[in-house]
Amino acid sequence: MIKAGIIGSTGYAGEQLAWFLYKHPNVDVEFYSSHKYADMTYSEIYSNFYSYIDDICVDMETAISKLSDINVLFIAMPHGKSFKITQKALALGVKVIDLGADYRLKSKDIYEKWYKVKHESEGLLKDAVYGLCELNREAIKKCNLLANPGCYPTATILALTPMLNSDMIDTSSIIVDAKSGVSGAGRAANVASLYTECNESIKAYAVTTHRHTPEIEQELSKASGNDVTICFTPHLVPMNRGILSTCYAKLTKDITEQDIISLYRNFYKDEFFVKIIDGLPETRWVRGSNICHIGIRVDKRTNRAIIISAIDNLVKGSAGQAVQNMNIMFGLPETTGLEIIAMAP
Amino acid sequence: MIKAGIIGSTGYAGEQLAWFLYKHPNVDVEFYSSHKYADMTYSEIYSNFYSYIDDICVDMETAISKLSDINVLFIAMPHGKSFKITQKALALGVKVIDLGADYRLKSKDIYEKWYKVKHESEGLLKDAVYGLCELNREAIKKCNLLANPGCYPTATILALTPMLNSDMIDTSSIIVDAKSGVSGAGRAANVASLYTECNESIKAYAVTTHRHTPEIEQELSKASGNDVTICFTPHLVPMNRGILSTCYAKLTKDITEQDIISLYRNFYKDEFFVKIIDGLPETRWVRGSNICHIGIRVDKRTNRAIIISAIDNLVKGSAGQAVQNMNIMFGLPETTGLEIIAMAP
Amino acid sequence: MIKAGIIGSTGYAGEQLAWFLYKHPNVDVEFYSSHKYADMTYSEIYSNFYSYIDDICVDMETAISKLSDINVLFIAMPHGKSFKITQKALALGVKVIDLGADYRLKSKDIYEKWYKVKHESEGLLKDAVYGLCELNREAIKKCNLLANPGCYPTATILALTPMLNSDMIDTSSIIVDAKSGVSGAGRAANVASLYTECNESIKAYAVTTHRHTPEIEQELSKASGNDVTICFTPHLVPMNRGILSTCYAKLTKDITEQDIISLYRNFYKDEFFVKIIDGLPETRWVRGSNICHIGIRVDKRTNRAIIISAIDNLVKGSAGQAVQNMNIMFGLPETTGLEIIAMAP
Amino acid sequence: MIKAGIIGSTGYAGEQLAWFLYKHPNVDVEFYSSHKYADMTYSEIYSNFYSYIDDICVDMETAISKLSDINVLFIAMPHGKSFKITQKALALGVKVIDLGADYRLKSKDIYEKWYKVKHESEGLLKDAVYGLCELNREAIKKCNLLANPGCYPTATILALTPMLNSDMIDTSSIIVDAKSGVSGAGRAANVASLYTECNESIKAYAVTTHRHTPEIEQELSKASGNDVTICFTPHLVPMNRGILSTCYAKLTKDITEQDIISLYRNFYKDEFFVKIIDGLPETRWVRGSNICHIGIRVDKRTNRAIIISAIDNLVKGSAGQAVQNMNIMFGLPETTGLEIIAMAP
Repeated sequence: MIKAGIIGSTGYAGEQLAWFLYKHPNVDVEFYSSHKYADMTYSEIYSNFYSYIDDICVDMETAISKLSDINVLFIAMPHGKSFKITQKALALGVKVIDLGADYRLKSKDIYEKWYKVKHESEGLLKDAVYGLCELNREAIKKCNLLANPGCYPTATILALTPMLNSDMIDTSSIIVDAKSGVSGAGRAANVASLYTECNESIKAYAVTTHRHTPEIEQELSKASGNDVTICFTPHLVPMNRGILSTCYAKLTKDITEQDIISLYRNFYKDEFFVKIIDGLPETRWVRGSNICHIGIRVDKRTNRAIIISAIDNLVKGSAGQAVQNMNIMFGLPETTGLEIIAMAP
Repeated sequence: MIKAGIIGSTGYAGEQLAWFLYKHPNVDVEFYSSHKYADMTYSEIYSNFYSYIDDICVDMETAISKLSDINVLFIAMPHGKSFKITQKALALGVKVIDLGADYRLKSKDIYEKWYKVKHESEGLLKDAVYGLCELNREAIKKCNLLANPGCYPTATILALTPMLNSDMIDTSSIIVDAKSGVSGAGRAANVASLYTECNESIKAYAVTTHRHTPEIEQELSKASGNDVTICFTPHLVPMNRGILSTCYAKLTKDITEQDIISLYRNFYKDEFFVKIIDGLPETRWVRGSNICHIGIRVDKRTNRAIIISAIDNLVKGSAGQAVQNMNIMFGLPETTGLEIIAMAP
Repeated sequence: MIKAGIIGSTGYAGEQLAWFLYKHPNVDVEFYSSHKYADMTYSEIYSNFYSYIDDICVDMETAISKLSDINVLFIAMPHGKSFKITQKALALGVKVIDLGADYRLKSKDIYEKWYKVKHESEGLLKDAVYGLCELNREAIKKCNLLANPGCYPTATILALTPMLNSDMIDTSSIIVDAKSGVSGAGRAANVASLYTECNESIKAYAVTTHRHTPEIEQELSKASGNDVTICFTPHLVPMNRGILSTCYAKLTKDITEQDIISLYRNFYKDEFFVKIIDGLPETRWVRGSNICHIGIRVDKRTNRAIIISAIDNLVKGSAGQAVQNMNIMFGLPETTGLEIIAMAP
Repeated sequence: MIKAGIIGSTGYAGEQLAWFLYKHPNVDVEFYSSHKYADMTYSEIYSNFYSYIDDICVDMETAISKLSDINVLFIAMPHGKSFKITQKALALGVKVIDLGADYRLKSKDIYEKWYKVKHESEGLLKDAVYGLCELNREAIKKCNLLANPGCYPTATILALTPMLNSDMIDTSSIIVDAKSGVSGAGRAANVASLYTECNESIKAYAVTTHRHTPEIEQELSKASGNDVTICFTPHLVPMNRGILSTCYAKLTKDITEQDIISLYRNFYKDEFFVKIIDGLPETRWVRGSNICHIGIRVDKRTNRAIIISAIDNLVKGSAGQAVQNMNIMFGLPETTGLEIIAMAP
């Protein structure tokens, strides 16, 4: 059995991780760590786990003292908080999967510019592997420090990579208009996330300034071979879960919708978790699952491709992909513990 | 492998059944039947099943022709529609699990009075077993025709049976104020179930006339040993899934909250799917699972017990319990295929 | 013009009050006071008021310094916070309308028992008038200190008073199962009110302990002439606004549904804001309005009356009734500024 | 008093119109016509109007017989249904305000291509005036046949016109990613609009084929002086009301965000219903009102302007603008009956 620990287990990503790991046939969770709820029973905080996970949450200090008991550490903390614990874990030979943003960007400068905090582990950046499983599998297999992708980046990079890879779009023309459920804002108590402030409304936020922008650009640039700059606009939608990423790009080749669909199906032909559908994605069809649905349309009038992807932000966009990465890192079948189908309605 | 067929597979209960059976290690589904969507691919109707269930839905005639290939038939149709197919299936030695209301009431007269249709299979009523698993397990093991309980009855009967069984409440004092998500209304296209008509509102409906009333009374009378008449008021809540049943009854004995909690814990001590929690149930903590949470309070000022139960109406209140019943009927471990934990948020 | 001030203008009740007073033809608001948002522009906090109310919010000290400029002070603060400002205002001859709970209960002891804070203005309790307009109009006309009713009490007292007044129910049999939208929890940032914690779920809360219980009992006892003790259970519903109060009581007389409807229509025949409907109330039909819809059913099987009332918790349940009270106190037509019809969908 | 009739009064646009006209100080509604609910009381269909509008709905024949009694006819029917009644009304000297799509496009061919029905009143197209009040006021004053704009077009045209007018964007670069609440789908009973199908999900729909596309292009081309072709993608959001239109365009001039804001403020300086806000629009802040909020950002990294507009689709996007148009056509102050402020939360 793989022995795992979770830092930040009572945020939404951490809780989703606990959900997947509890059922995972090859994993035992040794500790659930929580800053806010240390010393409370896990199932008091999340009653869905009543009689399943009745462990007491531990604080960071206790978590650190248990690092030598585990094989893999999942970190689900706000950015800027993972540096020390990551170093300690790696030093002990524990593999680290960070669900936060601290090791996703290869450039310390870009990190500090967008996140407005100092990066305290620059040395780890070159070894950290960006864990978008479908695009980076070989590197993931060998890594000790895995930077689990952000939710918007996962949806967007999966949507755009095949076209960039095939050099069929104008890389300066990319617009990503993305929509997220409220769980993306986390479980922090703040007025803007109250039911009464989010319900019955939609808004754009962090326009031109969202921190996932450089992460998307870094990976799209890799796919393209050239520097890609995108225009990225996230929106907040009154629902718990789900990301829909509507991506626009000017076609530089004369290509039909059906050709692009074929290209995508071929590109992802061996991937269990990416499905090119004929219709248009809806977040409900992937809610709770690790699946990404991608739908493709060509607007002949303006010669643009419109690629739409849907994921569950807490699963493929966070904890599910983290488990998928763990599976790859530990040589397990990639779908282990992730076979859940979205439940409708 | 148990070979199963589903009649009415594209309604919400049928779809939830398909979900559980797809993952069930001991079941193969031989056909998915649908009145409205015959000849369409299942995953066109429910895209969450894309690449999982890509079978073509069959019509009733085809379903009938395949009865001899199966061991168990699940019927998820509106009341009054199951009589013929049930008879045919039973005649062929196929076990029948009816998720509808046609075999739940032992009295043909009461059925016809509340449902306003003629009962065409009176002869089957005495053999049909009411499938509230926790309370009727032995009979279920031996039955061929299983009447799967309604959603409100499941939540309410589980909440009230231990107290009635212990003769500690005034049976004429019972009030059940229940609340359901909109999936309880099914997938039929009607104005009252539109998003815009249900959202941002709550209402009571079918006050004094809801058809689940005699079903609840029949089973509570059994538990009590005396005729129980209840006052039952269902409400429609703007959410997809979930039933919360708030049950009130006058205590006839001098008993504390903690005593009642102990009584309930003892009553359900061997039950995996019923959990007596310390706090107050919330439907989100059981959403998607086959679990029933029960919370207990005593109002000393008025000497009433307030028993609150929460289930997912489509799981423990419908398809999940149907699978649980199948497991019992076929000698499988009762939790097989039903181990899912509610996913939050 | 009546000159008004609002203390606590940036909570939901305060904001709703600002909404009504802005349009009120006989009122000028002299100041908007806010603890949390002092020195911010009102429309920065609530952008619906952009270009309408662009005043700077003042702090309590400034509010106090302006008391001599106003005729009426609205206080929308948490309980236990209104004592000093109320005394100051009254001393200056300013009429006070308190939307909080501090002057609703006539008994200091009961207040302190349920609210767990010391009452610092016992002397004012005898003069304070409970402002359920339809039932207490004459006293309201003459009062200087108006205790604006709570949201659950407003819906429940309107629903039950005619029957208690006519002595047709067993006063020990009353059960009130009430449901509220999330705005009832106010605008404070706490985890339990997050979108992701409230959406797609229903729960009961404060079972047997909700502070509105003694308030309802006090007024029902007045209506009955005898001490009334009720069993009151509030629930939280995933919607912004609305209260539905489902009230159960044993009938002591042989009376038909139609007779009770007639009795209610007669009781409220001169009331603009209370409407006895033939169907069953839904909160959406009163959302945004000062109207209370009441629907009536008799359960002949159990000889119970089921009276269901619906209001908007922020309007008739708070700010709307406060304005209605002001109209009465200042001799204006009672509907002035309150003519809004619920907007559907 | 202006005497008005409403055809299609029981759809959502018709009901919203009834709401505004009921309170309008200069209008009497002579008849409410409904295809589906003829002979029913209006308040039975929409209980918010209980004791306000208790008229019996009439059928089309009766409506036609009353045309000579009215001064203005509002038509809120699906496209392709308005031709005959419009002709009859105009022939009798009745002004017509059509909330549908039949007279919005100047080109019969474009209409027939996008709407797939034959246009039976080509002769009226040249006289019909496109009623985007802020941009076409002079023509509206004099017209007899008013084509009330679509919801997406209203939001989008108001957002983009000032920039096109000032020739500061590349007209081939415009992408409009729009989001709508479910009331935009109308009140027809269909599965896709059920609560359970829309809740907790977002999707794009009608990608590259939405019928509002040519309407937006027609008006933007007018503003630009050149043919404008846009890429338009609508999305369905789980909320009742609201449209958010996120518009992207490449800047052709070197201009700052603040310059564009100033340009917009100047462009709309005399407009009561269009407000350029500093922050980012949210649909809740305009819900129920006739206001359009516009927020502006420049993405310097990609040299694009991002203009975001928010309206209530049933008010400024439909019935509210229809009343605004009526006010203009009849020489009334433009805001008459439309002074309502959005109600939050």
